[in-house]
Amino acid sequence: MTAQSMEELVSLAKRRGFIFQSSDIYGGLQGVYDYGPLGVELKNNLKAAWWRAMVYERDDIEGLDAAILTNPTTLRHSGHEATFTDPLVDCRTCKSRWRADHLEGNTCPGCNSEDLTEPRPFNLMFKTQVGPVQDDDGNFAYLRPETAQAIFTNFKNVVDSTSPKLPFGIAQIGKAFRNEITPRNFIFRVREFEQMELEFFVMAGEDEEWHKTWVETRLAWWAEQGVNSDNLELYHVPADELAHYSKATVDVMYRFPHGVEELEGIANRTDFDLGSHTKNQGDYDITSKVEPNTDSNAKLVMQDLENKRWHIPYVIEPSAGVDRGVLAIMNEAYKVETLENGSERTVMSFKPHLAPIKVAILPLKRNHEGIVSKAKAIKKDLMKLGLGRIFYEDTGNIGKGYRRHDEVGTPLCVTVDFQTVEEDDTVTIRNRDTMAQERIAVSELPAYVRSFMQG
Amino acid sequence: MTAQSMEELVSLAKRRGFIFQSSDIYGGLQGVYDYGPLGVELKNNLKAAWWRAMVYERDDIEGLDAAILTNPTTLRHSGHEATFTDPLVDCRTCKSRWRADHLEGNTCPGCNSEDLTEPRPFNLMFKTQVGPVQDDDGNFAYLRPETAQAIFTNFKNVVDSTSPKLPFGIAQIGKAFRNEITPRNFIFRVREFEQMELEFFVMAGEDEEWHKTWVETRLAWWAEQGVNSDNLELYHVPADELAHYSKATVDVMYRFPHGVEELEGIANRTDFDLGSHTKNQGDYDITSKVEPNTDSNAKLVMQDLENKRWHIPYVIEPSAGVDRGVLAIMNEAYKVETLENGSERTVMSFKPHLAPIKVAILPLKRNHEGIVSKAKAIKKDLMKLGLGRIFYEDTGNIGKGYRRHDEVGTPLCVTVDFQTVEEDDTVTIRNRDTMAQERIAVSELPAYVRSFMQG
Repeated sequence: MTAQSMEELVSLAKRRGFIFQSSDIYGGLQGVYDYGPLGVELKNNLKAAWWRAMVYERDDIEGLDAAILTNPTTLRHSGHEATFTDPLVDCRTCKSRWRADHLEGNTCPGCNSEDLTEPRPFNLMFKTQVGPVQDDDGNFAYLRPETAQAIFTNFKNVVDSTSPKLPFGIAQIGKAFRNEITPRNFIFRVREFEQMELEFFVMAGEDEEWHKTWVETRLAWWAEQGVNSDNLELYHVPADELAHYSKATVDVMYRFPHGVEELEGIANRTDFDLGSHTKNQGDYDITSKVEPNTDSNAKLVMQDLENKRWHIPYVIEPSAGVDRGVLAIMNEAYKVETLENGSERTVMSFKPHLAPIKVAILPLKRNHEGIVSKAKAIKKDLMKLGLGRIFYEDTGNIGKGYRRHDEVGTPLCVTVDFQTVEEDDTVTIRNRDTMAQERIAVSELPAYVRSFMQG
Repeated sequence: MTAQSMEELVSLAKRRGFIFQSSDIYGGLQGVYDYGPLGVELKNNLKAAWWRAMVYERDDIEGLDAAILTNPTTLRHSGHEATFTDPLVDCRTCKSRWRADHLEGNTCPGCNSEDLTEPRPFNLMFKTQVGPVQDDDGNFAYLRPETAQAIFTNFKNVVDSTSPKLPFGIAQIGKAFRNEITPRNFIFRVREFEQMELEFFVMAGEDEEWHKTWVETRLAWWAEQGVNSDNLELYHVPADELAHYSKATVDVMYRFPHGVEELEGIANRTDFDLGSHTKNQGDYDITSKVEPNTDSNAKLVMQDLENKRWHIPYVIEPSAGVDRGVLAIMNEAYKVETLENGSERTVMSFKPHLAPIKVAILPLKRNHEGIVSKAKAIKKDLMKLGLGRIFYEDTGNIGKGYRRHDEVGTPLCVTVDFQTVEEDDTVTIRNRDTMAQERIAVSELPAYVRSFMQG
């Protein structure tokens, strides 16, 4: 089950502390959001799952965490200065501006006027002045519009420090910024967002096979995060819609509450990127069409171990949106169930590894010293498992606690009561999804929780 | 032991893939750095240690992850637009610009001219145009100069969604940006950096006691990260040097390779922040001097449970620099040892929980199927512990592998050899610090590693 509308998700996100409009008390900042106490855990868990799958579980991928401020020369040679634009139209009647390809019909959505200008390109990169010399137009940086470029510009640094052999990848998670003309659909289309990008370098000729492999790998990963494959579909981008760097792109499309849109794109970027950023381009057989580069001081090349020739690898790029991922995961997890007694409960059925709170410890009485100290000792014990947030919930109202933790997706609740401290050192453990309760010995709790969380 | 000079750290950082100059292949971008394959792990481990200590191990702190792009109204009411400045002087001879308080003598460091202007204030915040209307001066945002402000502007959102009682805190880790006039000293003074900030809200009157508590708590935390207390000292900022919001500030100073400078600041910010951002200020007894606010739509207040009066809490802020933390940790870990045979080894003696690689698995032969598959199985097994990066090192040269892993600070190396696969299913486990080697059964390895990593 999923949410019936975006409004349901927006409302739960704010009420329960997942996601807030940024700068809310000053009327907000359009297309910019803040992650609250539970949202930050959910987002960090999703990022950790990606990092684990990419960097930790493989032997052929290294990580990177590069800066947001980017030298304009990088984004000139990447093609972003020339081509990273959206078509913009002005309404001559009300002076508003719109993205031409988002208009339905040729009518201003602000005032319904049809007196619109022809579309013209608008560059989506944010600029900022760097250094104290404000009158010098050369001293500026861009906020990176994607994390990918710093992977290419650090290619030689990573190769020199880790000595990899092809095929190998460099993975990065981080913020990127796009000055969207019309941000919309909650955290789907925003001006500040986070990306999880892998650049996987391969021999030319092996690129098409690796492209297929990565599409399959990424689909399997999304399924492990709890995204129902019925809500995913692949879109093979037609040749005339491909980005300037791409030989082929497959988009992983997800059925969001507002429609089917891109969750991740997996592109075959050929040797365009390393070729564009390398010096002495003429020395190598670059197959893509690159502009001359007399600025770069590095050769972004690998040596073929068989024929000893230096060449520029191809690259396959699975590029996923973190915020879009969070939105998909929240949508997939959202359930409203009618219980036997006719009442309703809202449940976020997150996979345990993504749940913001792993276990809630609920003392039956919040002022009973024995119960409270036992509950705190149990929290401390479970903390040692290193699973994430173990929450001590001291409202003293168990029923209310269960409902709250259903709604924020806590997989397990542990209740400490008089029986625990006066009789047999057992606790009630309650399962979010089945609502089943069982009593188990406190001594068995860590093993139980560990095994449960590993699925 | 620590490094003898910053150069030693910079060199190791680049050679081994910890930290690179950003946009390196295009001549760099001053005051901006990228974290490489090992740096990203070290930095993430440090951030995770802070988050664990702040959010997971306590019951009175919630997390937050707010946006970088910030509504200017927020930074007007915080005082940043008016006061977040450094004094700037121009050299009339060579036209260069300098930070006045960093000049030694009244001489231009660029050309030695003494023909300098009087100092004038230069605002350190980066600005960027937001939205497609480029001619409207109102449509811009700042890159946040600190993470703290979004904690204050989200105060009501967090209170409404988590119902805390005083004292309680909100913790955040994230990027911040300052247009430093003269960035320098590697990752110490940079234009793009990361902060770990806690805003801990308390009753007025309890603020001084909590301030002391947090100074002690933070010192203890730095010690747990491996920072020798001999290299730390406290600086009680004198009244005439305090920031506009502060009643008292204690800086945790660290002996960096370039000198003793601030690693973390712990400030008593009184009710200045919540008071400045709240509406209907006149309804509350605000003790600090705040400017009138007719922009805010929220009351940033708590109800006193005893006398039912609404009041504005005080706040204690421990604010640490992530990059400065990484630099301090690297400096503390750096050791050059002379071995018995007269040769030298460089060791990064990171605490295990901070080490970029936890365990390296070294197959004695990289082409021996039995050894390789055994080594990979051991990696997979140790991965399940969820400790971080377990590295499969297939150079096939054990001595070289040990040296490399000493230099990147891997606490344990596991060597898989013929004895493992042909005789008794044991491996050699080698300790980074003692260089001692012992053979243990493969079946005992996970328990050994887990126990070792927990210290």
